Amino acid sequence: MNQLTRNQANSTALTPLTFLERAATVYGNSISIIYNNTSFTWSQTHKRCLQLASSLSSLGIQKGDVVSVLSPNTPAMYELHFSVPMSGAILNNLNFRLDHKTLSVLLIHSESKLIFVDILSLSLTLNALSLFPTNIQQPKLVLIMDETLAPHQIPPLPKNVNIINTYEGLVAKGDPYFKWIRPDSEWDPITLNYTSGTTSSPKGVVHCHRATFIVSLDSLIDWSVPVQPVFLWTLPMFHSNGWSYPWAMAAVGGINICTRRTDAPTIYTLIESHGVTHMCAAPVVLNMLSNFNKTEPLKKPVHVLTGGSSPPTAILTRAERLGFEVSHGFGMTEVIGVIVSCAWKREWDRFPATEKARMKARQGVRKVGVAEVDVVGPTGESVKNDGVTVGEIVVKGACVMLGYFKDEIATSQCIKKNGWFYTGDVAVMHEDGYLEIKDRSKDLIISGGENMSSVEVEGVLYMHSAVKEAAVVARPDDFWGETPCGFVSLKDELKKNDIPTDNEIKEFCKEKLPHFMMPKTIVFMKELPKTSTGKVQKHVLRKVAKKMGSLSLPPPPRLISRI
Amino acid sequence: MNQLTRNQANSTALTPLTFLERAATVYGNSISIIYNNTSFTWSQTHKRCLQLASSLSSLGIQKGDVVSVLSPNTPAMYELHFSVPMSGAILNNLNFRLDHKTLSVLLIHSESKLIFVDILSLSLTLNALSLFPTNIQQPKLVLIMDETLAPHQIPPLPKNVNIINTYEGLVAKGDPYFKWIRPDSEWDPITLNYTSGTTSSPKGVVHCHRATFIVSLDSLIDWSVPVQPVFLWTLPMFHSNGWSYPWAMAAVGGINICTRRTDAPTIYTLIESHGVTHMCAAPVVLNMLSNFNKTEPLKKPVHVLTGGSSPPTAILTRAERLGFEVSHGFGMTEVIGVIVSCAWKREWDRFPATEKARMKARQGVRKVGVAEVDVVGPTGESVKNDGVTVGEIVVKGACVMLGYFKDEIATSQCIKKNGWFYTGDVAVMHEDGYLEIKDRSKDLIISGGENMSSVEVEGVLYMHSAVKEAAVVARPDDFWGETPCGFVSLKDELKKNDIPTDNEIKEFCKEKLPHFMMPKTIVFMKELPKTSTGKVQKHVLRKVAKKMGSLSLPPPPRLISRI
Repeated sequence: MNQLTRNQANSTALTPLTFLERAATVYGNSISIIYNNTSFTWSQTHKRCLQLASSLSSLGIQKGDVVSVLSPNTPAMYELHFSVPMSGAILNNLNFRLDHKTLSVLLIHSESKLIFVDILSLSLTLNALSLFPTNIQQPKLVLIMDETLAPHQIPPLPKNVNIINTYEGLVAKGDPYFKWIRPDSEWDPITLNYTSGTTSSPKGVVHCHRATFIVSLDSLIDWSVPVQPVFLWTLPMFHSNGWSYPWAMAAVGGINICTRRTDAPTIYTLIESHGVTHMCAAPVVLNMLSNFNKTEPLKKPVHVLTGGSSPPTAILTRAERLGFEVSHGFGMTEVIGVIVSCAWKREWDRFPATEKARMKARQGVRKVGVAEVDVVGPTGESVKNDGVTVGEIVVKGACVMLGYFKDEIATSQCIKKNGWFYTGDVAVMHEDGYLEIKDRSKDLIISGGENMSSVEVEGVLYMHSAVKEAAVVARPDDFWGETPCGFVSLKDELKKNDIPTDNEIKEFCKEKLPHFMMPKTIVFMKELPKTSTGKVQKHVLRKVAKKMGSLSLPPPPRLISRI
Repeated sequence: MNQLTRNQANSTALTPLTFLERAATVYGNSISIIYNNTSFTWSQTHKRCLQLASSLSSLGIQKGDVVSVLSPNTPAMYELHFSVPMSGAILNNLNFRLDHKTLSVLLIHSESKLIFVDILSLSLTLNALSLFPTNIQQPKLVLIMDETLAPHQIPPLPKNVNIINTYEGLVAKGDPYFKWIRPDSEWDPITLNYTSGTTSSPKGVVHCHRATFIVSLDSLIDWSVPVQPVFLWTLPMFHSNGWSYPWAMAAVGGINICTRRTDAPTIYTLIESHGVTHMCAAPVVLNMLSNFNKTEPLKKPVHVLTGGSSPPTAILTRAERLGFEVSHGFGMTEVIGVIVSCAWKREWDRFPATEKARMKARQGVRKVGVAEVDVVGPTGESVKNDGVTVGEIVVKGACVMLGYFKDEIATSQCIKKNGWFYTGDVAVMHEDGYLEIKDRSKDLIISGGENMSSVEVEGVLYMHSAVKEAAVVARPDDFWGETPCGFVSLKDELKKNDIPTDNEIKEFCKEKLPHFMMPKTIVFMKELPKTSTGKVQKHVLRKVAKKMGSLSLPPPPRLISRI
């Protein structure tokens, strides 16, 4: 058999871009995207993506160039998941909720050649660009206008802005017969995503065509998504490329319901008016939906996939009573969204509600397309399947990133020579082979679906002239899931006037961090609890933070305008 | 980005074998296989496969060895799709309806090290082995007993048969904690399938782990198969590994309903008693089911996937009225089952029944996991999308075989340097991008779901001392789909006594060919119609054969005991 191996016909690179042209053939006359009063068919979406890709080529964008996007879930945002890589470029979605300083760091780090910017993120982007050193070439700017916005919502265009064109302008002048640029290899990069709004060491996760292809198919099978679902875009596409669902929806010819607003009334209206069948949502969105004053259950069930921290039993029960069928999983940008999911067992149907919720709150088992997932101890040995012994979650499979952009050290720290990707998340393995996250990676806090590194927040606290020691942990929150809570000890020699209040420290952080990363609580301590070797005992602080309870009450739903 | 490429964690070989251990975790207590009164759980199936794989290793089976199987759709047959490759070996399913001469040729060609043989195929196998030249090492024999057979159905074991063990014997002595042998590369071979029962040049299609992985996932998405379906095994697993569904069922934790018998009463009984949701079937089986005297429609719809020749409108209509939801596609062993399928468009729902059937009879579009499918003219250019211009179907993608075992010439004839696999099947491309097979590859006849090469049958006819010219084409058949029809001209100088009757020629062929390949019709001609360059005009003969109409009437269903 040895002479037989890969050949010209079967070595074609795996890429999710091929899903789009098939969708244009099979679902050509079916709806691809609905956004307010606008809609497109798959045939139109295919054509528009080819046109935009051709325009990008005409603008000099070449294979391997990075093209950035700052946009909420609009049709343009969806299309860019195809058109940018169809031009050979690498798609770099950026979180438009970042502060302009962080944004400028990321734009410089990414070496972005061009930015597609939503009209409402233009001023943020211009502020970020203003911080570029003069010796660094600024990326070109393309403006994504939005005709569905009311005139008063559209900010006036600042003067002297060098915008080369609008999104629709580029679409209009493109060639619908453009021969899109296929990857030379399925290992060629397709996306670059930054995992945290970091001011110090940006971590840019790079994924390849092969990984997105496999994860897209996997994300359909595990969730039993049939052809032509109606998918509501509550999950921001800039979050790990919407867990691969932009591509997956093309594979099954689904209807993408795009929306800028993700408040409860909007979501319920969209669900009912478009017959939504599937949606992904951070736990905070699920929380909001189940707390909304809604008495009538949904007309037909909606499948919700939620990731990250496990939804509290009360929320789960309420959501399911309303007609949401909640699936729960674990994932991260480094593996493109959810790769471990709490696959439901039929025998659990008989369990009482609390036991059901306890089962569902576990993160679960790897999806079929993931080769291996394990929980290992410090020596790399699998931990006991006892639900008690903690270890680190490790992963093998096509879903694992190529690495961090321009950061060989960080890459080699998590992708180890033994062939495993170390997630940094701590879990136990239950007797039945389902894993459950017990303690998130010590450095990670998830607030409102946004991941942040506590180490970074600490870095800012340490910049305050009065601070001696700082440690940041997650404080449980009924609305946001968690908020960052800073523990601080002050320098001994301070004059009375120099002793800051907690609000002054918060204000100090606010200037230097995106809003969601600002510590919402500051606790002063004479000295932080430490081990004999001088390491801060975060588990002690976590207990203190936990005891404090939630900072926010679930606010009345009308007040939540945007998550 | 150039420094980032595949690494230790994401290069793990794609293989469908990983589906099984996941199924054991997620669906451990759920039913995996039902066969008569026997059933297994996924946990048991996983354990049994590991045990058998370990026993194969103990017997000296090594990575890359070929292990053959002759069996109908029994639990053993299903398990061997995992356990053989888990021992590192290559699974070689053989058609147990072949004649012993052909079988011996294939066994010798495959260099098989071990044969798993169903008790009812033992005598066939022993006859095949008796034809082995003395200098060729005979494969070891493992007997698959079947306790569900009645005593009178079990033939007495011949004396002096060197059977090393039974299937259950090997399972029993195996190690359930066996560390199964993962492929070194996803391009390592996993299966070897012979495409025709050929006595001259066996074509052994070799597929790799990667291809079966991708096709298995693809076969679930395209058909919207949810988790935990109930799958009836009417399609023989020796046909292109059951179009990849043995592995796909493990991916979704389905229930495999195994059966030796595929007559209409058995199928209907199994559907109702087990709540079958999905089944694959050759058109001849669909034909049989719709012709069966059944007045009550099915209690719940059954999704049927049928391949090869398109089902006639009348059959389709009748089947759908009974509650079968028929999907139709095109595939071949070289691409592991169905890779082009007639994906349904919602706008067709409005069409009248005959138009619906006309749409459904087209083979359709590539599945999402297939990179490209085209219909090309002689110069390699795509034919016009006009539904009239014929060309050859060509394919690119992970589904394409590694090649033909020990046949570089045949491999290079179909896998061309331009990167396309040439299927040999002739089709038109419709305006909407759906292809339709117009004329099957000139050398192929499909009878009762079995493919045969007309060239081979001609080869046998030519061996008859009285035959001058011979050409074999398909004669349409209401029951078998097609039967081989031989056109023969006799030598001029024959004495009256030497002139054979059609029955004598059939008898002559019967000795040299599997039963299904024997020409069921012999037509004598003074001279066969030929082109100016002396090539037999098969299209003329096809018209003659078509005019003759069907040879067989659909027989009363009770008479059909086995397809």
